[in-house]
Amino acid sequence: LKLLTLARDLKRRKAREKRSLFVAEGIRCVEELLKSKLKIEGALVSPELISTERGAALLRELSALRVEVLDVSAKDFESAAETESPQGVLAIAAVPKGLVEGKLDGSKIRVIVLDGIQDPGNAGTILRTAAALGAAATLALPGTVDLWNAKVVRSSAGAQFRHLTGAVTAEELANLLRRERLELWAADVGGEALRTTTPPARLAIAVGNEGSGLSSTVQGLATRTVSLPIGGGVESLNVAVAAGILLYELSK
Amino acid sequence: LKLLTLARDLKRRKAREKRSLFVAEGIRCVEELLKSKLKIEGALVSPELISTERGAALLRELSALRVEVLDVSAKDFESAAETESPQGVLAIAAVPKGLVEGKLDGSKIRVIVLDGIQDPGNAGTILRTAAALGAAATLALPGTVDLWNAKVVRSSAGAQFRHLTGAVTAEELANLLRRERLELWAADVGGEALRTTTPPARLAIAVGNEGSGLSSTVQGLATRTVSLPIGGGVESLNVAVAAGILLYELSK
Repeated sequence: LKLLTLARDLKRRKAREKRSLFVAEGIRCVEELLKSKLKIEGALVSPELISTERGAALLRELSALRVEVLDVSAKDFESAAETESPQGVLAIAAVPKGLVEGKLDGSKIRVIVLDGIQDPGNAGTILRTAAALGAAATLALPGTVDLWNAKVVRSSAGAQFRHLTGAVTAEELANLLRRERLELWAADVGGEALRTTTPPARLAIAVGNEGSGLSSTVQGLATRTVSLPIGGGVESLNVAVAAGILLYELSK
Repeated sequence: LKLLTLARDLKRRKAREKRSLFVAEGIRCVEELLKSKLKIEGALVSPELISTERGAALLRELSALRVEVLDVSAKDFESAAETESPQGVLAIAAVPKGLVEGKLDGSKIRVIVLDGIQDPGNAGTILRTAAALGAAATLALPGTVDLWNAKVVRSSAGAQFRHLTGAVTAEELANLLRRERLELWAADVGGEALRTTTPPARLAIAVGNEGSGLSSTVQGLATRTVSLPIGGGVESLNVAVAAGILLYELSK
């Protein structure tokens, strides 16, 4: 299968899942990919890439690392890219083993659960925040955008290259909480004030869709609902901002 | 001047500033506008609006409040709208008096200063967060997107209808800090840990552009540089997430 055909195919979630491959687009994202230990299948490059010094340096690095590079026209490149202004470079790499097979070590564990987060920008920003604030993993329940979608990868700035992630069904989440001895809390307007609680050492926190709220899965599994202090006539915080504040408060 | 021509004209920052008018697009945003006390000049409506019950209810409310409504074709509507899928409704309203003329009352004051925040989504999210977390005002330094840009208004969900905002030059910021007896801190990777500081009662906090960092204006006026605890190989937080955590921590 040629790299161009493969990249186009990987726009579909089903293809990503079947092949265990994903696409990283843009200079920064591919740079982060090279820094990670993920296996790279190859890269697509259009003439635009070498128009900047940083792009030219990236191309040299791809060659030095013996990554297979396919030169394509700007038009063919566009047909394979998902994000806006992809800067003439994308790389195809192997999705790392997810949390379901992993194990959460450490005495203090924080996991974030995405409950129906559809916006790729919000999902990517949450991944970046979770990695930065020391969360052990990010889990995605059904209704959440695929965390290996090129737009998510782009807006996370590649945070999931070094941060455990996993798509889980309701049943898998229940099993994982039990097996890893994690308590699940849910964040929702109207919950008790997070600041007044004493969080357990091993905790997963679920954030929901701003419009539709928390799923019945999360409502059924959560032992507590907590909230952040909001006012000013504002109904809710942006979900990525809320996730950031929750992880910050829980990391104390 | 007809409402359609006016709406089109208000896409330009200069026109918004000259006329002291802005455009609110989308059902939710216009709903918030009606709840606010801002003076409404009129609304543009395309046939799409009444395709939903919520849209039809909004149209009835506009009539009940005797807002001048101009019916336009979908094509004309598109020519006036700035945001994606504007849902067939936009309203033109008066920009409220900004902070420069206002006064900050209260013993504990938090102000957020946007230092070169160009992305309208990030600026809008910060406005929404600032209003929700009780900040007294949001100030925008040169290099920051106009806070009355339709995309900013849309992503703030209209937070600035009830939250003080102001575009300030470096000199105006310096005068305002002095007049309002506000200390200015800057947030930057590498600053001292915010958690170890004792913030003053009256404090403005500046957040900068993720790429280019803080301006010389902020570097010159800030008495302290503080940071959030980030790791995991992540270079920085998204600026809206960082602003949310800063305001949360400073609101204690």
